[in-house]
Amino acid sequence: MEYRINENLCQAKLSIIRRITDLALADLGPKERAVLFSSGQPADEAIPTELVRKYTDRLLDAYGSEMLQYGGHKGYPPLFPEIRKFLNKDGVVARAEDDFVITYGSSEAIFAMGSAFIRPGDRVIVENPTYLNATNSFRYCGARLVPVQTDSDGVNLEALEEAMKKGASFFYTIPNFGNPSSITMSLRKRKAVYGLAVKYGIPILEDNPYGYLRFSGNEYIPPIKSFDEEGIVFYMGTFSKIVAPGMRCGFLCANREVIPKFVVFKGVSSSGNINWSQYVVTEFLREVDIDAHIARISGIYEKKARTMYDRMKECFDPAVEFTMPQGGMFIWAKLPEGAEATEFCLEAAQKLRIAVVPGNDFFIGSPRSCGYFRLNFSKPTQDDIAYGIEKLGSLTRKYCRG
Amino acid sequence: MEYRINENLCQAKLSIIRRITDLALADLGPKERAVLFSSGQPADEAIPTELVRKYTDRLLDAYGSEMLQYGGHKGYPPLFPEIRKFLNKDGVVARAEDDFVITYGSSEAIFAMGSAFIRPGDRVIVENPTYLNATNSFRYCGARLVPVQTDSDGVNLEALEEAMKKGASFFYTIPNFGNPSSITMSLRKRKAVYGLAVKYGIPILEDNPYGYLRFSGNEYIPPIKSFDEEGIVFYMGTFSKIVAPGMRCGFLCANREVIPKFVVFKGVSSSGNINWSQYVVTEFLREVDIDAHIARISGIYEKKARTMYDRMKECFDPAVEFTMPQGGMFIWAKLPEGAEATEFCLEAAQKLRIAVVPGNDFFIGSPRSCGYFRLNFSKPTQDDIAYGIEKLGSLTRKYCRG
Repeated sequence: MEYRINENLCQAKLSIIRRITDLALADLGPKERAVLFSSGQPADEAIPTELVRKYTDRLLDAYGSEMLQYGGHKGYPPLFPEIRKFLNKDGVVARAEDDFVITYGSSEAIFAMGSAFIRPGDRVIVENPTYLNATNSFRYCGARLVPVQTDSDGVNLEALEEAMKKGASFFYTIPNFGNPSSITMSLRKRKAVYGLAVKYGIPILEDNPYGYLRFSGNEYIPPIKSFDEEGIVFYMGTFSKIVAPGMRCGFLCANREVIPKFVVFKGVSSSGNINWSQYVVTEFLREVDIDAHIARISGIYEKKARTMYDRMKECFDPAVEFTMPQGGMFIWAKLPEGAEATEFCLEAAQKLRIAVVPGNDFFIGSPRSCGYFRLNFSKPTQDDIAYGIEKLGSLTRKYCRG
Repeated sequence: MEYRINENLCQAKLSIIRRITDLALADLGPKERAVLFSSGQPADEAIPTELVRKYTDRLLDAYGSEMLQYGGHKGYPPLFPEIRKFLNKDGVVARAEDDFVITYGSSEAIFAMGSAFIRPGDRVIVENPTYLNATNSFRYCGARLVPVQTDSDGVNLEALEEAMKKGASFFYTIPNFGNPSSITMSLRKRKAVYGLAVKYGIPILEDNPYGYLRFSGNEYIPPIKSFDEEGIVFYMGTFSKIVAPGMRCGFLCANREVIPKFVVFKGVSSSGNINWSQYVVTEFLREVDIDAHIARISGIYEKKARTMYDRMKECFDPAVEFTMPQGGMFIWAKLPEGAEATEFCLEAAQKLRIAVVPGNDFFIGSPRSCGYFRLNFSKPTQDDIAYGIEKLGSLTRKYCRG
């Protein structure tokens, strides 16, 4: 039969990250080696597998089948004070007026925001470039995306104000180690962005998956949420990067007036969250020295970022531009004018079996011509990084000859 | 600030099941006893907690952190052949042309179908009464619900044809032990319903959470999906009732042409499924003698249903109508003409601390006057059933005096 599927769903396509990964792995021979710099996964050695096992055992002992029954739509109540403590360890982020709803990672929180705030044709302001799963999600909800230029210290304020003047459902930002650019918004800009949001009555959706993965550079910069006297900031966090993505445990923190609507959404969309991961994350937050844990993970990532950066310096054509990141999971590189990242990445995946993601889809409007590509350094091993970057190096020379 | 939340979300309200449960538990004194006949949870003793622990341990040993990384958007590949075998153990349900996407329980599959097929204002045909989380979900997606009368052997065919003539996004049905009515659709009607769907080109969404929980009566009746030569039936299953709801592991089975759209939806809505539960369910389906397991669970439910039914016969006013179910999790009872189930259930929750759900919200249009109420027998203990039904009994006499 012919299926009359919604236009928005028909237009949505499989993410370029999946497509490029699939391409690098397609019909891989038994002796061929593939290296994936494509996804945003944590290092395997950063995942506390033994703790998850220990806590699962202990919690099943203590709670039995209760842990395997339905969770509430809002989430597991003992998890809330732990998240509050976690958020507030460096200052007041979640205020007394704020409350939480637990989501399947921040992905579901992004979709819940889109679903709650976007009516078909509504404007949604985003940094350019930005996280493509978020823009896909907003598009699916019917948004017209309004891209705003990003400078080296975060979103351009004049451009943001111009965009806000015309109204929008919300402004979506990743202030720490933006994906894919790794740009961090300065404190001055965070305050200014908050001021603009209040002035124009436009909610901010603050997405902070990478904020705790800083390994060098400036000290801690507080989230925009920490200035939020008006309840205009919707803050999303996730335990995907600091515990494990497979927990599918994230949260939306917002004014307690508005949280009940998201609880209704959770009931409608998936009948609530998974108890297992909420119980395990609660135990993790209670038992583990979080600062020491984060320091350990950041140490792993710093080493990998350093290896990748040094190797790129050594093997890449000098015309490729990139900088050493101060945190997060990505290096954002640029081929010289006229070289096409899409072609480069397709050739890398098909011929070299190295998956790197072309930058086009991270830009709103997906420019046909784009020299940017994104490399993930957190998931591959040190050895994969050394091998993969050398392979890519020879290919950069081909694309930089002009 | 004032939040400009979508109308559909604003109109959606917390389910009556939650509200009545909360009411029965509100400010419960330390010596007060509450009994919940309100939710559709499995018996604690039916949940294979020890197997979940054993499999978690074993799988973490075998797969390590891989089990805690992101799952794919479609689901864990080794789970698919196991689901296919499970579905096809009594005949061909999932054909060669069919494929799967894993969802957070059937709730998410229901929402995915609504999201994919409903455009605002579209008609969706449903049995009346039916599962209120499904109708809430369809309403949220913008559906105009078209209720069709249900007879004792399933949906009324003439009424269904009248409704289908006018077109609809799909027809939603629970053919086995419908929630709340416990009605099962006859084989003759299943074939006729399939014929009508093909004639009018209207997809069927077949929801089968309770089909394996038959403890008496007719032999196995094959799902509508088993007749599906046209790829017009979307079949949903869940491991919530036969393993545990807390696995949040269900699936949508449909023609392989259309499954990629749902994979895109999963990517957009929640970045895929949780690996842990998919790995554990895969192991469960491989290792456990499913027929013996289902026989054990059904045995537990038959005993509880019998206790509840006998106790109701003994304690309820004879004017209350109900029958002994042949499976599923609910008894659907009716107060005599003129008595209001809403009042009865509110008084039961507030004064007796017994939670039973009034039928109104299960009917489309939520009739103000309705004598039906739903009792769950799977979750409460034998002792809770005996105690709770006796308490309710005295209240039925008050409401049956007229």
